[in-house]
Amino acid sequence: MNELVFIGLGLNDEKGITVKGLEETKTANSVFMENYTSRMPDFNLQQFELICGKKVQLVTRHMLENENGTRILQAAKVGKTVFLVPGDPFIATTHVTLRIDAEKQGIKTRIIHGSSIMSAIISLSGLHNYKFGKTVTVPFPENFSETPYNVIDQNKKNGLHTLCLLDLKTEENLYLSINQAIMSLQEIEQKKKNNVITPDTVAVGIARAGSYNPTLKADFIKYLTDFDFGEPPFSLIFPGDLHFMEIDALLAFAGAPAEFRRLAR
Amino acid sequence: MNELVFIGLGLNDEKGITVKGLEETKTANSVFMENYTSRMPDFNLQQFELICGKKVQLVTRHMLENENGTRILQAAKVGKTVFLVPGDPFIATTHVTLRIDAEKQGIKTRIIHGSSIMSAIISLSGLHNYKFGKTVTVPFPENFSETPYNVIDQNKKNGLHTLCLLDLKTEENLYLSINQAIMSLQEIEQKKKNNVITPDTVAVGIARAGSYNPTLKADFIKYLTDFDFGEPPFSLIFPGDLHFMEIDALLAFAGAPAEFRRLAR
Repeated sequence: MNELVFIGLGLNDEKGITVKGLEETKTANSVFMENYTSRMPDFNLQQFELICGKKVQLVTRHMLENENGTRILQAAKVGKTVFLVPGDPFIATTHVTLRIDAEKQGIKTRIIHGSSIMSAIISLSGLHNYKFGKTVTVPFPENFSETPYNVIDQNKKNGLHTLCLLDLKTEENLYLSINQAIMSLQEIEQKKKNNVITPDTVAVGIARAGSYNPTLKADFIKYLTDFDFGEPPFSLIFPGDLHFMEIDALLAFAGAPAEFRRLAR
Repeated sequence: MNELVFIGLGLNDEKGITVKGLEETKTANSVFMENYTSRMPDFNLQQFELICGKKVQLVTRHMLENENGTRILQAAKVGKTVFLVPGDPFIATTHVTLRIDAEKQGIKTRIIHGSSIMSAIISLSGLHNYKFGKTVTVPFPENFSETPYNVIDQNKKNGLHTLCLLDLKTEENLYLSINQAIMSLQEIEQKKKNNVITPDTVAVGIARAGSYNPTLKADFIKYLTDFDFGEPPFSLIFPGDLHFMEIDALLAFAGAPAEFRRLAR
């Protein structure tokens, strides 16, 4: 059957895929995979090819953006084609275009979902999912933007938590560190002086969410900047109002100091 | 090894679990599962027991809330214990307490993430993930609340989309329908008159996200109330500002009418 199946690879390694995702891959005529929208730290392509029994064709950013995924669409016109994507297939919006193009060309599309880094981070932190506001990415200094600061500010005014994804360039193995992200937000604070990011602001740093050894640390940012989070990738949560159960979770799972008990609202 | 491993079952059926989640379950001494925080429409317990080769002990809401998970914690003190949860283990916050109790009693805990209904819904819609504000649950009429209306209002003012989960009682097989949810929001509109929910308000209804046959329909709510979404579970998105690429996605994946083209901002 000619169709294009988008399958989420989930998190970290070649076993982050769902059982049904793996089964669908095993029965495909062509298998493509991209590995540039996010990083799966322990993913081994040879190992994955062994598990699924298929040759996997790696798709570069250039191929998708300059050739509009023509090779993938052509394969999908003549047989069952699987496109593997880290995490959940459309949490990064870059592949929506490919799916629209496929449907416009009369190719049937389906999705097999995967674990997303966003719900993994929220899940790990123990903070309440429904209390998160808009998510934001903190860019590298050369792409400086005030948006992350403004999003944190707006969310806090509504009592909401902010999940900050820290920028990365997988192809160059570059990752914005938690320390760099905090410094960049502090720079904006010095200009705007809205008291959004002060030394006593509470944050939760998370490294390697979805891996076998994630590191979490909740603290006031004056102490967080010295903490060694180990290997990337990194993310940061700026909590809004904290329920006492959320504080309990930060004490139990994220090494929060006892002073956090005073923050309950 | 005595430890408590929380494993996400992912979406819909017994193959929604990750390959690593299944492997961990196969090596456990005790396996518990809850199936009341959300519904996996095509999950077959006997089939799952065959796949993982273990007897699975079903955990009721009563057992977790009244006995504080004592049986699970006792099992985890003497051997590797797996607790299976639909979706991602802590997106529903009810299990955070069990994890805190385990850690306080010196039991090591780990998480194997699963696909969450929240990222599946966002992924299916083709709307941009970073443009979603706070998520909200629309309750059954007997638990009437103005909160969903206020959250949609606040998100819209910030140009953001709102994901509405529609309430369910899995044990009684009761599901709030998309039609009921819209009517309940319209009732609040009649009182508050903030023009948040009018006949020309745009919404996206989603049924059975994560299953093999999800149904999506984007339309003005005056038309959406007559649409047949089929079987539950249901959810609703109230978009904020729409980018033209997001409108393209709603036209291609959610049967949006051509008039949607006028909405691009």
